[in-house]
Formats: sequence, C-alpha cells, structure tokens
Amino acid sequence: MRYRLGCELSYEVKSPTTFIFNLEVARLERHLDLEERLVVSPDLPKRTYSVPDVHNRYFAVNAEAGPLEIRYEAEVTLKVFRTDPAAISETPLTDLPLDIMPFLLPSRYVSSDRLAAFANREFGDLPKGHRRVTSICNWIYDNIDYQRGFSDEQTTADESLLKRAGVCRDFAHIGIAFCRALDIPARFVSCYAYGLQPSDFHAVFEAYLDGRWWLFDATRQANLDGLVRIGVGRDAAEIAFASPFGEMEAGPVKITIEHADGSPEAPGRTTDAISTEEPAPNAGAA
Amino acid sequence: MRYRLGCELSYEVKSPTTFIFNLEVARLERHLDLEERLVVSPDLPKRTYSVPDVHNRYFAVNAEAGPLEIRYEAEVTLKVFRTDPAAISETPLTDLPLDIMPFLLPSRYVSSDRLAAFANREFGDLPKGHRRVTSICNWIYDNIDYQRGFSDEQTTADESLLKRAGVCRDFAHIGIAFCRALDIPARFVSCYAYGLQPSDFHAVFEAYLDGRWWLFDATRQANLDGLVRIGVGRDAAEIAFASPFGEMEAGPVKITIEHADGSPEAPGRTTDAISTEEPAPNAGAA
Amino acid sequence: MRYRLGCELSYEVKSPTTFIFNLEVARLERHLDLEERLVVSPDLPKRTYSVPDVHNRYFAVNAEAGPLEIRYEAEVTLKVFRTDPAAISETPLTDLPLDIMPFLLPSRYVSSDRLAAFANREFGDLPKGHRRVTSICNWIYDNIDYQRGFSDEQTTADESLLKRAGVCRDFAHIGIAFCRALDIPARFVSCYAYGLQPSDFHAVFEAYLDGRWWLFDATRQANLDGLVRIGVGRDAAEIAFASPFGEMEAGPVKITIEHADGSPEAPGRTTDAISTEEPAPNAGAA
Amino acid sequence: MRYRLGCELSYEVKSPTTFIFNLEVARLERHLDLEERLVVSPDLPKRTYSVPDVHNRYFAVNAEAGPLEIRYEAEVTLKVFRTDPAAISETPLTDLPLDIMPFLLPSRYVSSDRLAAFANREFGDLPKGHRRVTSICNWIYDNIDYQRGFSDEQTTADESLLKRAGVCRDFAHIGIAFCRALDIPARFVSCYAYGLQPSDFHAVFEAYLDGRWWLFDATRQANLDGLVRIGVGRDAAEIAFASPFGEMEAGPVKITIEHADGSPEAPGRTTDAISTEEPAPNAGAA
Repeated sequence: MRYRLGCELSYEVKSPTTFIFNLEVARLERHLDLEERLVVSPDLPKRTYSVPDVHNRYFAVNAEAGPLEIRYEAEVTLKVFRTDPAAISETPLTDLPLDIMPFLLPSRYVSSDRLAAFANREFGDLPKGHRRVTSICNWIYDNIDYQRGFSDEQTTADESLLKRAGVCRDFAHIGIAFCRALDIPARFVSCYAYGLQPSDFHAVFEAYLDGRWWLFDATRQANLDGLVRIGVGRDAAEIAFASPFGEMEAGPVKITIEHADGSPEAPGRTTDAISTEEPAPNAGAA
Repeated sequence: MRYRLGCELSYEVKSPTTFIFNLEVARLERHLDLEERLVVSPDLPKRTYSVPDVHNRYFAVNAEAGPLEIRYEAEVTLKVFRTDPAAISETPLTDLPLDIMPFLLPSRYVSSDRLAAFANREFGDLPKGHRRVTSICNWIYDNIDYQRGFSDEQTTADESLLKRAGVCRDFAHIGIAFCRALDIPARFVSCYAYGLQPSDFHAVFEAYLDGRWWLFDATRQANLDGLVRIGVGRDAAEIAFASPFGEMEAGPVKITIEHADGSPEAPGRTTDAISTEEPAPNAGAA
Repeated sequence: MRYRLGCELSYEVKSPTTFIFNLEVARLERHLDLEERLVVSPDLPKRTYSVPDVHNRYFAVNAEAGPLEIRYEAEVTLKVFRTDPAAISETPLTDLPLDIMPFLLPSRYVSSDRLAAFANREFGDLPKGHRRVTSICNWIYDNIDYQRGFSDEQTTADESLLKRAGVCRDFAHIGIAFCRALDIPARFVSCYAYGLQPSDFHAVFEAYLDGRWWLFDATRQANLDGLVRIGVGRDAAEIAFASPFGEMEAGPVKITIEHADGSPEAPGRTTDAISTEEPAPNAGAA
Repeated sequence: MRYRLGCELSYEVKSPTTFIFNLEVARLERHLDLEERLVVSPDLPKRTYSVPDVHNRYFAVNAEAGPLEIRYEAEVTLKVFRTDPAAISETPLTDLPLDIMPFLLPSRYVSSDRLAAFANREFGDLPKGHRRVTSICNWIYDNIDYQRGFSDEQTTADESLLKRAGVCRDFAHIGIAFCRALDIPARFVSCYAYGLQPSDFHAVFEAYLDGRWWLFDATRQANLDGLVRIGVGRDAAEIAFASPFGEMEAGPVKITIEHADGSPEAPGRTTDAISTEEPAPNAGAA
C-alpha cells in the first residue's frame, strides 16, 4: 500500500532556539520508493543524524526570534510482514541477542522495575508468545480510559496505571512496561497512522518475539498495517517529534496521511501479527 | 600508568538463570596493551556483545542450578588526556553533535526533567564550562552524605536529593541530572577505581564539554586519572556489572586494582580536567 | 463474648527516649466490664491522654538508656451491633455530619485524592451502601497479595496498588482510599483480633454509612465480631502502637487474645454488618 | 488593631453540589468584638460545625444547579501576644502534651517522614527555640521561589522542595514538614492577611514552642501581627476555604481586609514572636 503523508508545524520563536525534529519517515527496507520534501522557512542550515540500525532521522536547526515553519511531505510504499499470531513464540532469555538488552531495561517513562509484581500477577501465568502481548493490550484497553488531560510529557507508566487514563503515548508506555517486566523486550514507536481520527502523530509499541519486532497498539485507534514509522526508542523521551531548546510558542500541528494511489480503501482491521522490519540478522544465531 | 585489576563473583543458582555481565575493561584507544583472562566455572558457553563506539563489553551465560563463579583478571595501561579546566568551555546546543542528544534526555534514574528549576536556580548563573560541572560536584559533595542504607537499585536522582544521602551510584545520578537539566550532555560510567577504599566497583560520570567527554566524581573517593572504564550508559540501568534473570543468591564480590609495574605511588589528587577518550570525530564540525 | 488479651513489648534503649504507646483497649460503651493491668519496667512516670469521642488512649514515658518492658493485660466483654448489610445505605453528602468530614480527606498514607479516577472506574457504578464497601474489600482481596516485604511504615495506598502486595496496614489504607475517593468517610482501626494467625496487632478499617461506623477487613484474616478496638485514626500514622523518639532497639512483640470465659468456640465468620459503636448522636439530624 | 474584612465567592453550579466552606473568622479569645454577616444567595439552609478547641467554623450548603454566591463581612479586633523570640525555647518531647502529638505526624501534603535526613542536615545543629524555626523560614525564603504554576492542590512538601517554587500553601507545608521532622509540632493556618498584595486568602504556619503556638510566614508577604485566623489544621487538606462535592465552575474570588478604625497605618514588620492564642492550659503541666 502506498501512502501520501506529511505534517506542518509552526512556531513563534522568542529567543534564539535550537530545534531538533524527528518527523521524517524512517529509511527502512520495508519503506519502499520513499519520495519526500522538507521545507524549513526561513531556510536555515540543517544538521542531520540518522541512528544506525533503526534509522530514526533527526534534523536540527538554530532559529532566531521570529516565525519558523516546517513542512514535510512524503510518499512511501509500506510493505508489511504478516503472519499468524499463534505461530509466534517468545524469544527465551537464553537466546536473546545481547544488543536487544536495552529494551528490557526500565527507562524514564517506563518504570518496569516498579511493575514486576503487577505484571506477573496479571500476565505471568498466561501462555507465552504474541498472544500474551495481545492480552496485555486488551487489558490496557479494558482498564485505561483514552482521555486527554490526565497526563503530560512527564507522566510515567505507573502514574498512568493509577490515573486509569491517558493518551496513545501513555498506552504505549504501559504496554512496554508490562512487557519488560515479563522479560519481553519492548520499545516505543512514533508513526504516521492511517485511519487515526483525528489525525495526529501516533504512538504504539513493538515487542521482540521470535527474532523479530512486532507491532502492538493498545489504543485500537489505528490499523497495524497502516503505520508508517518515524522512529523507535526506549520511550517517548527519545523520539519527540520536536524538541525545542529555547523560548518559543508552538502553533497548531497538522498531520495528514492518505492513500497515494487513489484507492479509497483503508486497510481493514487485521488480526494478523504485523511487523515492518526484517528479522534481526543475529536472531536465532545467539 | 599500568594497572593490574580484577574481580571475583560467586552465585548459588537456584533455578536456570541467564546472567548478563558487564565487568570487562572497555576496549578503548586509551586502554593500551590490555591483557586479560576471564574464567567462568562451570565452563559455560558465553554469548558476547560489544556496544559500537563506546565499547562496553557484555557477556551472557545460561546457568543451571548450582554454584557459579566468575573470575576476571586484567592488566592495562591507562593513558589519560589532561588539560587545564579553565580552558574547557561548554559545547553550545547550536553545535552539539546529534548523536550526543540521548545524553541530554532524562532516563530511569536521572529524572532531569523534574529538576530543571532546581538546577537552574543553583547553577544557572555560574560561568559556563568545565568549572560549572565542578561546581555541581562540589555542591553534591557538600549537600549529600555518602552513606549506605538510603538508596537501593531503584533510587532516582530526585529521591536522593530529598534523602540527602547515597552512594557513588546516587552521586553520579544527581550530577548527571543537574548537567542534563542545564543542557550539558552527561552519562554514567562504571569503572575500576585505583585508591577506592574499600575496594569495590565504582561509579562516576562524564560530561560532554568542548567536543569531548570529561570525567567527574562528586564523591571525591577516587582519583580521576586512576579510573579504568568498564562501561558508559545513560544511567546505572544500562551497565549493571551483573544482571541475573532467575532465582539465585549472590555471594560476596571481590574487586582489586593495583599498580602493575610495582610502583607504590598512587596518582595524586589532580585538579586537571581528565578524559580517557579521543575527541568525537565530528566535534567542532557541526 | 468476653476476651482475655494483652501484649508484651521490650526495648533496649540506647539514649534517652520518649515513647508514646497506644495499645490499651479503647473505653467504648460497647467494651463492657473492662479490667486491665499495665506494667512498665522500670516503673516510670506515665503521662496519659484519651482522645475525646473516639477514646484512643495514649501513654508516654521518658526512658533512660537500658531495658524497657511494657506488659498490658485486659479482659473485656465485646458487645457488637450487627444487622443485615442490605439494609445499610450510604449517608448522602447532603446529610453528612460535618464533624465526619476529616475522614473524607486524603491523609499521609491514604492518597485518596490521587485515586479518584481509579475508584470511580472500578466502583463508581456499583449499587451504593454497605455492599459497595464489601465489593471494595473483595476487589482488594482478589487483587492484592497478603505478603510481607513489599511495604514499610512509609508506604502509601497508591504504592501498594502498584506493588500488588502488602500487609493488613496496607489493605486498610487501600480500602480507606477507595472509600474516601467515592465520598464515603473511612478511618483506620487498630485492634486485638481474635483468631488472627499468627497473633499480632491487627489493622482494619471502618466506613461511615447510614449514620454509624461499620467494620471492614479486606484481608479476611480475622472475624469482624472478634475485634477489640485500640484506636481509630485517619491512617496508620495516628495510631502506631509504639512511637519511640530516640535511639533504641525493639525486641520481639507478643500479642495474645483468647476467650476469657473458657469457651473454646471462636465467633464464626459472619456475613452480618458489624459495628462496635453507638450511632453518632447527630446522625440523621443534619 | 481592629480590622474590617470579608470575601465574595461565586459559583455556577452544574449539578446538585454540596459545598463546605471554612472562611469565617475563628472565634478565639484574642479575636475580640467579632461582628459579622454571612449571606448565601440563594438563601439555602446551612449546616454548621465548629471544631472544639481550635474553633474552625465550617458551614455546608446543598446547592441546586444555578448560580451560588457567598458574601462574608466581619469586623474584629485582633489582640496579639508578642514577646522576645530569644526567650522562647522548644518544648522538649519529654514534656510535650499528648494532645499536641498529631502535629508531629506526617500528613497528606506534609511528608515529614521523608524529610527527616534533610531537616536534620540543614537545621539539626542550630540552637533550639523560636529562632531555629525562623532559620527554617529564612532557608525557605532563600531557596524557594514564590511563583504560581509550579504547584496545585495535590502538591506535597517534598515535591515543592524539588521544584524550588510554590505559593503560600507550599511555603507553609515545607515549613511544617521541617519542623515535624525535627520533632517540633507544627500546623497549617489559613487567614485574612493585612497587607498581602494582591489580596487573597493567605496560608502561614504555627509551631508549638514553650507551651504556646507561634506564627511563622516563610513567604514574608504579610505581617505576623496582621493575620486574622480562619482555621488551623494538619495541612491544607483540612481547611480549604471551599470544598465543593459536585459539578460546578468557580468564579473569581474577592478578599478584602483593611483597618476598621480608619487608621491608615499598617502594622510595621516586626521581629517579635507573635501568637494569637492563649497558652495551652496544660502547657508546662505535663
């Protein structure tokens, strides 16, 4: 499926401000024929950085006081890998590639070390595999209200569990926390999400199972095979779409995503397991 | 200066347990002529992983119930880079290499996002540069008691600030938190520390200034030019010397470090700025 | 039912220490024919205080360095008021006596203000009355493990909810927190508990419903009609059985409670609603 | 000095709401010749309650949907007791009246149990007495910014210490926390404050020293001998000026206080120790 997508951000900069953005489509093997255009107004020099392996793409600009606008447009064909969830087991710790280990550790907003007893009590006895992570997502969907106003950019997974409410960022943090607490590597994913209403940047998570990263969305707000990845990280801290260092006021954010080829059909809700990555080269070869 | 160092760890494993260790000397350019020997008893297959760029070295073993012993011995010549602290400025955000950015972000035990006002109020008006980080270390030394029993492996920098007490791990977390809150990249360092009494693994931190990582030790317990690095990470979570996944009991830990060449002299306390890394290749070339 | 009960406490006092104790049976109307003996060794002067209305009894001694022993023995006939739970409604806020208001407020270990959404989501739609509080107790029993080692004297209700484990103190704090979050006044109760195994001081809670305080025990460890009250308070902070101000080491604590009249029969588990207080004089007369 | 004071509150009630107010001048011996008028529009029945001993006065109304207005006006002559601070010692624990004990305990927003090390490190070695509490106030004034936007109605003393900012409520909570951590009883005071700019309800605290409660204001925003007390409590939870239970929108709050006798002179800043209470009848008679 080919998508046309983009975003527009605007700022009123009050004092010299360095912005770091992470909003471009990741250059993955399964992101085919990526065409894109990035316009920064005024036309400031950009420093860029692409994270090895995961291909998050950052760019930074140093803005003077005044207006700043960012416009990004892209077309990309998304090739997903799908399979029967029942066939996906958990990678045992005895075989886990060591470069995956950081995604077992607690991070700023994923206080998995505080949730070990909670996770084990709710999910410890469930059959292992892709469906255990689906059970985690179902639990989150059933127990947490999708609601604005209960969290901010400092909210952690354990706080969201107590408030019983949050947005996509918080749902992802809780899911990641439960996975890590159960020794399942998990990471945060930012993306353009086909079908998300209202349109916005979206956050989901991936769990590492059977040698590959698989997508999960506890919010049930978008289709797993319609997610175009921007970045992955330990939690939301790493892949904020915009990180301003200085005084500024942010204007409205506009995000779009639609079928590029004119096809009116959305990908339907799927019960397949979905991945957008090739399996790790060292998977199974521990 | 050449050091002979090592550690001995022992465990009584109760059920099959995967251990990940990070206790070998990092393979840095400035760690010259490294000779080493690692003995695992029983002699289990080891999986290994070295982190690109920073060269943390992990190895994992899958142990059955029964005793497990790890013995590591090494000799290494440590070549430090030293300069006048007054000559070291802060790298402005406008020039910061983007691959350094993760070390500006809050992490699990470094809640820098909660300490922005605190850091700015105490250190915001101080002259920028290496000496501002030294001022941070002095503040920590003056305000926090070095004392066991006030922290555990889940303690965060803001909790230590309230308890006014902690150990080397906590001193490093506070220092890192203040640096990040002031937009100075900082990271956690585990090491063998010449002169540390009683002998133990040690934790200090590094701040990124003027294109290079510089060592700081707010505990004043060891000499900066006698630190042999094991690993660096965002905080203690990433570079635990031993991470067991399973049921086991840990026995006593024995760490040694001495001069390898028979010289009885310790490196004296220095007021130089100390670094054990070559400058980042992209430093200054932003 | 008449009970013979008591406790023995011993301390090794290291420096002059003021102790405040709250371990004597409260002088309630429904505690009939109370006979008791309190021995402090050495025989120190005692200051005493009884809280108006609720009749918690405190005594304080100023101990010099050396051993200190407290022995308390009492016999009391406990007259409980019991009724059909289905007949007990909640007192609407519109009628709530204002002197009850403190028991709607959050307190140190009862962070009910942080649990409003949680409580409303789990219990907000249940039928109001005594059985709603029973539902709260059932939820706690089903979701929290009764286990030592997960809490200490600073643990709050929201922390226990995340750890999914605690002891009687924590079970009571959670129950009180949920009640207050639902605008049901609730308070902490310390007591001698017939049938508790192993014998210890016990903590339960009371909710104010239909003009009277009713007992609840989410641990299901003791019989509601076998609880001899020591004190009531906002939470555990107020009615610690011993509060030492100074350096000392506490020895073992021995608590006993048995039938005074030789009857071997324990009160059976009851499904009645149980109260040990006369209704508040102003109840219903708002 | 005689004061004319008052407040006006207005609400738009959305659904039936019970309000509990605590805004009337406390009926203290040292509040002489109190004349007052309370108007509730619409003219709803009021339930009232006055707390024994401390004389906080609460009234409650049950409001239907629609506008609700409260207007309170009073004149009172305030007689303060003043003395030389240097003459005021701390009441030793060995003599402390037991009814004062609740004010040594941690409460919801006064997490003194978490601040014991902090308080002892900063203030433990200072000379005891009224001036030690003044030192606490000076420390707060020097280290915490008086600033809106850093706290809300759930903020605790330890959070304010980390944020290094707060309003009068937070300054009082920190002061109380430090006192209790040092075994000095302390309580929260709400009041009308002559000279406060802009006019608002004010919060200060009292410490129990030498048999009497003494006023302290770490904000330095008002004159200690110009405070007309509304209520005292363990912390802000107990004496909110308005506690609505239901859906409503609060309108602006208007508070006034001026000299009743036409004298244009404010009481000057004083270095005297100020109390508005008679000494406790049992003080010194422990």
